[in-house]
Amino acid sequence: MSAPNMDRMAVNVIKGLVMDGTRKANSGHPGGPMSSADFAYILYKEFLNHSPDDAQWFNRDRFVLSAGHESMLLYALLAFQGRITVDDLKAFRQWKSRTPGHPEVHVTPGVEATTGPLGQGFSMSVGMAVAECMLRARLGDDVCSHFTYALSSDGDLQEPVCLGSAALAGHWGLGRLIVFYDSNHIQLSGPTKRSDTTNYKTVFEGFGWHVLEIDGHDHDAIRQAIRQAQAETSRPSLIIGHTTIAKGTATREGDFETHGSPLPADEIAASKKKMGLPEDQFFYMPQDVLEHFRVRHAELRAAAARWTRAFEEKLEKDAAFQELWRVTKRAPGNRSFAWPRFEPGSKIATRSAWGKCLESLVDSLPILVGGSADLDPSNMTVKFREAVGNFSAHEPLGRNLAFGVREFPMGAICNGIALHGGLVPFGATFLTFADYERNALRMSALQHLPVLHVFTHDSFHLGEDGPTHQPVEHICSLRLIPNMLVMRPADGNETALCLETALKQTSRPTCLMFSRQNLPVMDPAAYPAVLDGAAKGGYVLRDAPGGKPDLIILASGSEVPLALAAADLLPERKVRVVNMVCMELFDEQPQLYRDEVLPPSCCCRAAVEAGRTELWYKYVGLGNPVLGLNHFGDSAPPDLLAEKYGFTAENLARMIRERLALA
Amino acid sequence: MSAPNMDRMAVNVIKGLVMDGTRKANSGHPGGPMSSADFAYILYKEFLNHSPDDAQWFNRDRFVLSAGHESMLLYALLAFQGRITVDDLKAFRQWKSRTPGHPEVHVTPGVEATTGPLGQGFSMSVGMAVAECMLRARLGDDVCSHFTYALSSDGDLQEPVCLGSAALAGHWGLGRLIVFYDSNHIQLSGPTKRSDTTNYKTVFEGFGWHVLEIDGHDHDAIRQAIRQAQAETSRPSLIIGHTTIAKGTATREGDFETHGSPLPADEIAASKKKMGLPEDQFFYMPQDVLEHFRVRHAELRAAAARWTRAFEEKLEKDAAFQELWRVTKRAPGNRSFAWPRFEPGSKIATRSAWGKCLESLVDSLPILVGGSADLDPSNMTVKFREAVGNFSAHEPLGRNLAFGVREFPMGAICNGIALHGGLVPFGATFLTFADYERNALRMSALQHLPVLHVFTHDSFHLGEDGPTHQPVEHICSLRLIPNMLVMRPADGNETALCLETALKQTSRPTCLMFSRQNLPVMDPAAYPAVLDGAAKGGYVLRDAPGGKPDLIILASGSEVPLALAAADLLPERKVRVVNMVCMELFDEQPQLYRDEVLPPSCCCRAAVEAGRTELWYKYVGLGNPVLGLNHFGDSAPPDLLAEKYGFTAENLARMIRERLALA
Repeated sequence: MSAPNMDRMAVNVIKGLVMDGTRKANSGHPGGPMSSADFAYILYKEFLNHSPDDAQWFNRDRFVLSAGHESMLLYALLAFQGRITVDDLKAFRQWKSRTPGHPEVHVTPGVEATTGPLGQGFSMSVGMAVAECMLRARLGDDVCSHFTYALSSDGDLQEPVCLGSAALAGHWGLGRLIVFYDSNHIQLSGPTKRSDTTNYKTVFEGFGWHVLEIDGHDHDAIRQAIRQAQAETSRPSLIIGHTTIAKGTATREGDFETHGSPLPADEIAASKKKMGLPEDQFFYMPQDVLEHFRVRHAELRAAAARWTRAFEEKLEKDAAFQELWRVTKRAPGNRSFAWPRFEPGSKIATRSAWGKCLESLVDSLPILVGGSADLDPSNMTVKFREAVGNFSAHEPLGRNLAFGVREFPMGAICNGIALHGGLVPFGATFLTFADYERNALRMSALQHLPVLHVFTHDSFHLGEDGPTHQPVEHICSLRLIPNMLVMRPADGNETALCLETALKQTSRPTCLMFSRQNLPVMDPAAYPAVLDGAAKGGYVLRDAPGGKPDLIILASGSEVPLALAAADLLPERKVRVVNMVCMELFDEQPQLYRDEVLPPSCCCRAAVEAGRTELWYKYVGLGNPVLGLNHFGDSAPPDLLAEKYGFTAENLARMIRERLALA
Repeated sequence: MSAPNMDRMAVNVIKGLVMDGTRKANSGHPGGPMSSADFAYILYKEFLNHSPDDAQWFNRDRFVLSAGHESMLLYALLAFQGRITVDDLKAFRQWKSRTPGHPEVHVTPGVEATTGPLGQGFSMSVGMAVAECMLRARLGDDVCSHFTYALSSDGDLQEPVCLGSAALAGHWGLGRLIVFYDSNHIQLSGPTKRSDTTNYKTVFEGFGWHVLEIDGHDHDAIRQAIRQAQAETSRPSLIIGHTTIAKGTATREGDFETHGSPLPADEIAASKKKMGLPEDQFFYMPQDVLEHFRVRHAELRAAAARWTRAFEEKLEKDAAFQELWRVTKRAPGNRSFAWPRFEPGSKIATRSAWGKCLESLVDSLPILVGGSADLDPSNMTVKFREAVGNFSAHEPLGRNLAFGVREFPMGAICNGIALHGGLVPFGATFLTFADYERNALRMSALQHLPVLHVFTHDSFHLGEDGPTHQPVEHICSLRLIPNMLVMRPADGNETALCLETALKQTSRPTCLMFSRQNLPVMDPAAYPAVLDGAAKGGYVLRDAPGGKPDLIILASGSEVPLALAAADLLPERKVRVVNMVCMELFDEQPQLYRDEVLPPSCCCRAAVEAGRTELWYKYVGLGNPVLGLNHFGDSAPPDLLAEKYGFTAENLARMIRERLALA
């Protein structure tokens, strides 16, 4: 068979696998994979640089299936590569298989990102391209130099997060980013024309992209477009491939119902016949097609081996690179920091302390990159920005990412940077706007990415900007995301400790919450536990005489000073004050430690936090008082709000006394 | 003084008010209002149709300050209109004033939407233009025919939600929507060029908009642009006004620091001098400027009076219109419905029951409009869509909004429709994608808008699509948003009751959560309370003999059958099963009722819900078992997941027995 005919056959074999996989699972999305198959096959067979023996090879091209529902297409290609087996394909969408319904990054070798929630794969690919560009400039293009590819669909590009990330990719000039837009004009619920008449060529050109339009089923056109996209070095490329959904099926080409439902058995048989596949064979993957597909594998192996030899030589001979690499790859647990010290008795907002800590990381953690969603002066990232410069492809050593007012792209791009590896990303905004990037936060947690999500202005103490800007439910609601740390330090020095804890995480993100308002710096002479307590999540800040409390007051962040002041107003009680910096870490401590901090025998307890009260009852018990905020805020000076909302030591002490009177 | 000079003076007076207001509040954003002032002034003085005596006049033009931080500009214009006073301006950003930090819809007459969280004002203006277009076609253009204006800024347009809403506005052909983009090339943290090189003219043309570019300080150019925009009837218009931030100040023109901080006193004095304002007067608002501004007021009054007479005449003479108006304006409490009945013993997913209920509303609630974010077949909105047709300016009687994969625009546009009045909007997607529109949900609640937010696939029972698509934290985290109802019906008939409760709300939104999987329809013969219990949020579904339980099992939604089955496995106990349809409604019931349902004397309790467990402890007590899911899900068939996660009657009964053994 001629090479072009073998290519056609190979694409048909992929389509057979897609039809069989979704049919066997009795769920999934066959239509899209069949319209994208030509592009994805040509890319994987002829262009994608990878190491057939090592899915994690550092300098591999990245490929993100942003249209995550087309997972069977990716799995078929990974089976072609030899990374997974036909048995894996047969276990599509089954319990603990390597082929879950949507691609999951730590489950399947060769899957670079967990996708499915639309738009975010595209955005993560932007993050990967940022990381590649940054690392190429730092490590040298003999060490890091690769393309980042993404596959998008009609529905994918509709997601606003895609458009925001595209604006940033264009602005940054990410020439090594190549996105294929499988434009089959069908989305889950019908033809795209019902909800979209956007001219994506025009829009992406407006974002500064290099846009190509081709017949997405024409292999030569695909090859030429990829080459043109690779040759364009100053702009990201969008290849719009005009395609037909369910391409190649017997009777269902162009049918939107193939988007989200398996094909019937008879249609599959008829389609296989039409495509020259054996009708009676399931999961047909013939050896000659595999050999044809793997024709580059020897060459890829040799290239990866050459890279490894050159890399090792460089590492041995080039002392500067050695140091750079050491810094880049230093494990989170071994990082050391020289944090600024804040003087006991002085006052500083934890957002300002965060700003100072960030400055200290300019030199001590050169792989830290990130920025603010246009709140630099409020998020205290200005000095960092000034010290490290703004990133773009023209300034690849810049480490500040000027995200603009684009929180969701920020979160997803940070996830992409973390997925790439070699850099530690952070993104900052006001806590209330965590809402805008909420699913990216979830995707950080789901993908086990140690991203730093920084949120300043973490309560109504933001004041005059009013209820739209004042978080109420956010602290608690972020704590509900599994595998997420939520940390709220009580003063400047604890801010550094929280940051250190966050930077030592290997498999989960941290939401760091900082105050707008000044807070007193606690004195370790008076409260020795402040020196290391934060790492355990919660600890006894101030104890009752003899360590035998008859009242425990819990607080977090900016409410810790309030708890201490309330304790002073209750001289008749033996009061312990517990600083609950991070509920998740505290809950992970051994029972013994938790019982030491919160002795079961002492059930007279209270808590205070400037947000929803619900999650505190697990520590204080249901009948006990929690001073919080369960309604929207108001626009007014923050001290007045504190008074109106009862956030005073007097009121907290009064609430506790009332409870004691009842008990 | 000539009219053009009076206009210049009036703009300067506004700028003086902006400088004084932010200075007195010692916070706020003076720079932006001063670059937008020329446009906003000309619009308000010469174009905006309103009734000077009635800020709520039905047929008024709508104006949305999407750049909500420019609130002092809007307040100055409302003072010019006579809707608020100079004293209100002096109380800018103070406790319970009519001039909060960002505009709030129910606080200040003439404010049409609460804005500040960027991008959403723009999106709400799209919703208002949708509502106008729909109502014009229904009620006649003698009753409803107005423009919707919005004022956007550089930062505002960067927000992805803006771009997604713009794509929809262009697709729908909303010719009466006119957005002014105050392009001063400055955002909060510096020049926009740091984060954005988008060509917005090109991008918006790609979205199908009519785009004009002008000098945004040139009054004649502004007039001409507004006229051109009004004349363009088939496309929304974007007027890009090139402007200078802090325009008119003595030394700070173009300075990004004027974006987010008040000007110093000496700069204000020097600026007033430069602008020909008395330096020593604060909140200067001279009578001649007011008279000049209000020159159209007599005419506007007459026009509003003519509208009212014509409207009343039409109402009297036109029986069809009378009926239409009655339906449009019928108060939520008086709406009546003929819900489908689901047969006890049969099985139906609550999402399917929702679909049937939605069908029944096609005729009984003709003001219901909305749609799905491209999940029509999954969200069960297909039959509704087929019955009512897709909306666009060419099909203004269509009631289905084909949002595409754009959840955040969907939420914000629904808010805009509700703000306009005359229609009841709904938006539907998978529960897990509530994340994408989270801040729009919050803005529904903050603005007291009775929007229906419909979420199907409300648990891991979604199955094979896997953890990206399986909600875990969502049910609980949405309950944390103040002023939001979260309802989770247990069967088909309760779905109708929940929908009815949601449709009777006047000042809060409802999140309706529906199962993917089939659920048995409960028999009112066995469980009479199912006929009306949902309205109280929680109720005794099945009681212990004599109403004296020694064990209470609480559940919501799809876990209610599980609770009933577990009760059957505990014949040794006197079990009460409580159906907790809506925690918020239950918590509002009198203490007496709550104690009847959950007698304090019975403290052996358990709860089950397919999501995070935390919020249930307030009902069951801390030591009691809650069967939930506190980790991410997996891709596998749902019944297998239920088994793996312990969602079986046997496991729930076992957990309860273990607890009883301990007690």
